[in-house]
Amino acid sequence: MREIYLDNQSTTKPDERVLEEMLPFMREYYGNAQSMHSLGLKSKDSLEEARGKVADLIGANETEIYFTSCGSEANNLAIKGIANAYKHKGKHIIVCAIDHFSVLYSARRLGQEGFDVTYIPVDKYGLIAINELQQAIRSDTILVSVQHANPEIGTIQPIEEISKIIHEKEVLFHTDAVCTAGTIPVDVNNPGVDLLTFAGSQFHGPKGAAALYIKKGVRVIPQIDGGIQEDGRRAGTENIPAIVGFGKACQIAKNEMDENYKMIVLRDRLITELPQKIEYLYLNGHPAKRLPNNVNFSVEFVEGEGMLLFLDEKGIYVSSGSACTLKALKLSHVLSAINVDPAIGQGSMLLSLSKYNANEDIDYVLSEFPPIVKRLRDMSPLYGYFQKTGTRQVAGPGTDYEHEHEEDE
Amino acid sequence: MREIYLDNQSTTKPDERVLEEMLPFMREYYGNAQSMHSLGLKSKDSLEEARGKVADLIGANETEIYFTSCGSEANNLAIKGIANAYKHKGKHIIVCAIDHFSVLYSARRLGQEGFDVTYIPVDKYGLIAINELQQAIRSDTILVSVQHANPEIGTIQPIEEISKIIHEKEVLFHTDAVCTAGTIPVDVNNPGVDLLTFAGSQFHGPKGAAALYIKKGVRVIPQIDGGIQEDGRRAGTENIPAIVGFGKACQIAKNEMDENYKMIVLRDRLITELPQKIEYLYLNGHPAKRLPNNVNFSVEFVEGEGMLLFLDEKGIYVSSGSACTLKALKLSHVLSAINVDPAIGQGSMLLSLSKYNANEDIDYVLSEFPPIVKRLRDMSPLYGYFQKTGTRQVAGPGTDYEHEHEEDE
Repeated sequence: MREIYLDNQSTTKPDERVLEEMLPFMREYYGNAQSMHSLGLKSKDSLEEARGKVADLIGANETEIYFTSCGSEANNLAIKGIANAYKHKGKHIIVCAIDHFSVLYSARRLGQEGFDVTYIPVDKYGLIAINELQQAIRSDTILVSVQHANPEIGTIQPIEEISKIIHEKEVLFHTDAVCTAGTIPVDVNNPGVDLLTFAGSQFHGPKGAAALYIKKGVRVIPQIDGGIQEDGRRAGTENIPAIVGFGKACQIAKNEMDENYKMIVLRDRLITELPQKIEYLYLNGHPAKRLPNNVNFSVEFVEGEGMLLFLDEKGIYVSSGSACTLKALKLSHVLSAINVDPAIGQGSMLLSLSKYNANEDIDYVLSEFPPIVKRLRDMSPLYGYFQKTGTRQVAGPGTDYEHEHEEDE
Repeated sequence: MREIYLDNQSTTKPDERVLEEMLPFMREYYGNAQSMHSLGLKSKDSLEEARGKVADLIGANETEIYFTSCGSEANNLAIKGIANAYKHKGKHIIVCAIDHFSVLYSARRLGQEGFDVTYIPVDKYGLIAINELQQAIRSDTILVSVQHANPEIGTIQPIEEISKIIHEKEVLFHTDAVCTAGTIPVDVNNPGVDLLTFAGSQFHGPKGAAALYIKKGVRVIPQIDGGIQEDGRRAGTENIPAIVGFGKACQIAKNEMDENYKMIVLRDRLITELPQKIEYLYLNGHPAKRLPNNVNFSVEFVEGEGMLLFLDEKGIYVSSGSACTLKALKLSHVLSAINVDPAIGQGSMLLSLSKYNANEDIDYVLSEFPPIVKRLRDMSPLYGYFQKTGTRQVAGPGTDYEHEHEEDE
């Protein structure tokens, strides 16, 4: 069967060149990087070489890169690590309402421990409310965390403007760049950020290695205490094969960044051609300030799960939203935050592209997806009612909204 | 050059069968285990299959296994997770003085946050002071953590007795079994433990996957907040290749556990034959209650670093102690705790075996190691003085001990 992987926001296929780089470290060079013999030294040297490549991708110094096991761990280290290091200065932190759960729930945890957390809302495109952010910063604010781009709806935040506002107030700025670094250019110096999270598995590196950039001079309290690894900021035997693969993925991403823009052509084919074939289809996220690989539509009168299953039968792998939460199958916090009508949002679908996708994949999706929607709508009583009456059914008692959908422009 | 790897306490060579199991998940089955399509389902199924194998090794139910990225992370989750979950009950925890740094420093961190930590000493063999442990348990004690065996000196604790004492007092018991599980039989039911840490990289599994066993009904506060992975107890995209490899390593370890006892023969050759060839050599750790793969000697009149370097030149890879700390090259906390004279302890060396070692490796070490010690001693002024006078030099001003070494029996 034909297989079209369009779930690259969940994870990506490792580049073969990345695997080739990793394999020797799984076979012959298996030493612990802290061991004082040739095999250990080989691991240590490769660790530091990888650190250099990882730093290079984001314009950092290699001494500012701290390896973690995944993006979630890095986000936890950033949020909790800063909060605990600077709590003498103040106990107020600010996050964005559509940030990743590893940021939001780290903040919530801090809230339980006596910190004050402000959640900044976003507009209907997912852009952060800059004015509210500006007003939220207080004298006891120690950290603002705003994701660089949203994995679900693809909206890219105006990070330069955000950085300027935050740094005028002498507050630390963390950004979760898990879905931008490696895909679009990211430079920690321009705009200035103090901490930045990114993960190799999002751009054809292996699972098991991510990094937190911590600007020189910024303090963090380690979240995994123990040995002296990562300059005492993250204990645990270094996962050398994964880190070496992460380094290679960063090198490839940097050298071949221009290739990623080809995804924009494919993305825009889906964004423009799918609505020509499927009625009542609404794009989520910003139409222009958008990740080159992100397509997110709400499909009215159908449910996400049905679409996923039928598409899966055709070998088309997509997502209904964040891989970390979709098992719940309720409206995501992101779609809620941009005020998507729950009745429509439950038919949302995320198609996320990678450099391995080609025009033929898009042709295939454009030919297979519309009949699936038709089939699902033919089974939908809501759609039947709409067809018959020309009006949408108003939600009955027990739901907390009136269904009067206005399409976002 | 011949290569003899005797640093298996730092990390082990992955079994080729483990790698074979992992590779498909790095190439074709790269899906996120939380994704709702065939590729995600393949990952999810393999994740749960691995969980079953991992549970099997220690007699646990698969619902009691929580994957982490390394042993240090699992130890942090155990110590901090329990402390935070049960702090309403009491804020006293007990650890063993020679526990791993990821336990000790987690405890120290809790100490900074208002918990009271008691460190139980060990005797000259590294066995925990059972009476002191018993007396240390108070009404506000919520957790006792005692490692199953010590990675540096190999001493195996009387865990049955410890478990009994702790559970009589209705306190939770965590054991760090990183250097026992997979090497010697470990069963969470006998003796009963509430939490147990183990890591695949210690028994020919890959780096990047470890586990915390959490007995059903025991609560822990997650240390990495975010998505719903690992039943909400450890967020972050699951490292499927590493976890699958960990599962395979557990399966192999269980099926071939008897093979490990062959290491005892090699271990005992080193323990009995090295002292016949090298004078003033003192075994650290318990002579009988000892890991099958652990040999730790203090070599008087030489320094560990010199031995490591000369052995490395011969292709013999050993360690001077814990891989997490040895860069500091001072007397380890373990040797301090068993009262090794610092002047002698600085010449300590850990040779840790694996199933891949053979009798010829031991022959090679027995032939190469003694001349190295001789060469180093010939350069040592301390040894020169001892040779000339027949007495050991007393340490001068500025050191805080008098050098009167009594050999441990």
